[in-house]
Amino acid sequence: MRHIEWTGKCLKIIDQRKLPGKVNYAYLENLEEFYKAIVEMKVRGAPLIGVVGAFAIAVLAQKIGTENKIEFLKKIGEGVNYILGSRPTAYNLQYCVNFVYKKIRECKSIEDMKRVSIEAAQELMKTEIENSRRIGEYGETLLNEGDTVLTHCNAGELATIAYGTALAPIRIAHEKGKCVYVIATETRPAQQGARLTAWELLKEKIPVTVIADTAVGYVMSKRMVDKVIVGADRITKEGYVFNKIGTYQIAILAKEHNLPFYVAAPTSTFDINIEHDKVVIEERDTNEIAFVGRKRIVAKGAKVYNPVFDKTPPTLIRAIITEKGIIYPPFEKSISKLFS
Amino acid sequence: MRHIEWTGKCLKIIDQRKLPGKVNYAYLENLEEFYKAIVEMKVRGAPLIGVVGAFAIAVLAQKIGTENKIEFLKKIGEGVNYILGSRPTAYNLQYCVNFVYKKIRECKSIEDMKRVSIEAAQELMKTEIENSRRIGEYGETLLNEGDTVLTHCNAGELATIAYGTALAPIRIAHEKGKCVYVIATETRPAQQGARLTAWELLKEKIPVTVIADTAVGYVMSKRMVDKVIVGADRITKEGYVFNKIGTYQIAILAKEHNLPFYVAAPTSTFDINIEHDKVVIEERDTNEIAFVGRKRIVAKGAKVYNPVFDKTPPTLIRAIITEKGIIYPPFEKSISKLFS
Repeated sequence: MRHIEWTGKCLKIIDQRKLPGKVNYAYLENLEEFYKAIVEMKVRGAPLIGVVGAFAIAVLAQKIGTENKIEFLKKIGEGVNYILGSRPTAYNLQYCVNFVYKKIRECKSIEDMKRVSIEAAQELMKTEIENSRRIGEYGETLLNEGDTVLTHCNAGELATIAYGTALAPIRIAHEKGKCVYVIATETRPAQQGARLTAWELLKEKIPVTVIADTAVGYVMSKRMVDKVIVGADRITKEGYVFNKIGTYQIAILAKEHNLPFYVAAPTSTFDINIEHDKVVIEERDTNEIAFVGRKRIVAKGAKVYNPVFDKTPPTLIRAIITEKGIIYPPFEKSISKLFS
Repeated sequence: MRHIEWTGKCLKIIDQRKLPGKVNYAYLENLEEFYKAIVEMKVRGAPLIGVVGAFAIAVLAQKIGTENKIEFLKKIGEGVNYILGSRPTAYNLQYCVNFVYKKIRECKSIEDMKRVSIEAAQELMKTEIENSRRIGEYGETLLNEGDTVLTHCNAGELATIAYGTALAPIRIAHEKGKCVYVIATETRPAQQGARLTAWELLKEKIPVTVIADTAVGYVMSKRMVDKVIVGADRITKEGYVFNKIGTYQIAILAKEHNLPFYVAAPTSTFDINIEHDKVVIEERDTNEIAFVGRKRIVAKGAKVYNPVFDKTPPTLIRAIITEKGIIYPPFEKSISKLFS
């Protein structure tokens, strides 16, 4: 079973907050449940929340009782705005939700709208798998036998539908019999590297070592890393990469140690219409840092600042691996070509 | 009450592992208890474990029953080796333990040895406070009104006897009425920044904000930091600074953002006889990363690598603040002068 599955009536997902300790499934049956699943990070990862967002609209469409087309579309539009408000930084959510919304608006009857919304979400799911596979195939060519790849957060199967983005090249290399080693950063505050990346690579028998986020510079200085590959939540037309907090500093450390820094993302992550200084960096509940489980670790009264994404400038990026191929600087040009 | 106090019979300490939730005291009454307190990090921080190590030998001296001087000194020598084996990276432990050991060896009678060992440990404690105060006075001149200082780990009162090293300039600035703000990194794995730095600064009403270790680059890029000050566990004759894991990468990030990176340490932290590539970087229990409380967060079977110190080269350091003054590059020269 995949970690995400359309049952025909609802979306079955693994509640990723419980991993690796427990594999608990959740069933998303109405718009509020989809919204909560994204906000509370039962599902996370830009490509995954994109697909989940698409199904949110599809499920909403099934539930709307009216026979009035205008009223129906109004309710869909409200649902679109609602679900887009769940998390602001990743572009895939906008991309996928708007994809379904557009397909719905192109329909003539409410019956068609209901059917097409499901088909569109399923199409996105299928495309996402194909894209990840292609990212893996292209990215694999960048990896040499024996390479150790440092990755941040989780840009694996659990962040997508299958294969992953940053982890796809590693998976394909492994499939082809290359020995590739992974160093996964813990990735505070939500620890997706320690909790999720290690779990999914272990299942595939790909050797993985977890380090604290404080140890990145050290392992690079000890020449324990050959390459860095990370995923992305949004990429602008000039190649600014918005990704999990900590990505930017890893990119600087890679430059300082002359290591190639690669970003892997499908074109659904590219937002070519926004200025990079207009992208909203989500700030999450400070308790993600102030508490460990139920135990307060930051003295009451001390402030906590918890931005969960950051921006890596194109100057720090060696290449971006997409499903359409690997693109290189100058990114303004290569990204423009990608979308022409 | 101080967080460390000589009762006349034993050493009373705060068990720092329980902070900030609980202020639990521990009473160290024999060598094994001192050893365990250091290894288990009930006490931590280079200057503090130096003083604790000194008292370990003093307490041991009181307990040795023999009237035979050679046998007495042999037992002291064994105790010295034992306690030095508790943690390898910080130099202050060696400095302080050897200071007491030397004082003992200079005595003629066992009675004198017992008395002198206590006096020597108390002298070190007093000197450490004076040194911290002087580091604060010198370092304060580097801080401007309204500065935000980023610090890593805990190099405060709790890492010393009073004032701290990195936090001493901030405390003195605060005493003198300067507004100074602090950003404290969480400092995984042991979270001394979140747990200890925030707690002690809050007590002094110095404004402090805790961030994840992944957010250092981001807050620097947002111009939220003016200066970086960290402590040190060992400094070599060329100015290589061994300190808590994560220090090295913060120094690189400071350089990238044109921010001054200062190290604050007493001369008891300087080991001018060792080559920097011979210093042992302690690796601690991987469960410090694999578990959060009692909950496993890294899937069983995944490797974990947990080095807890790193090495920052002198090229990344703007100045070192000592009790004898602030020294600047070339450090080989200025450190040599410091010890001449």
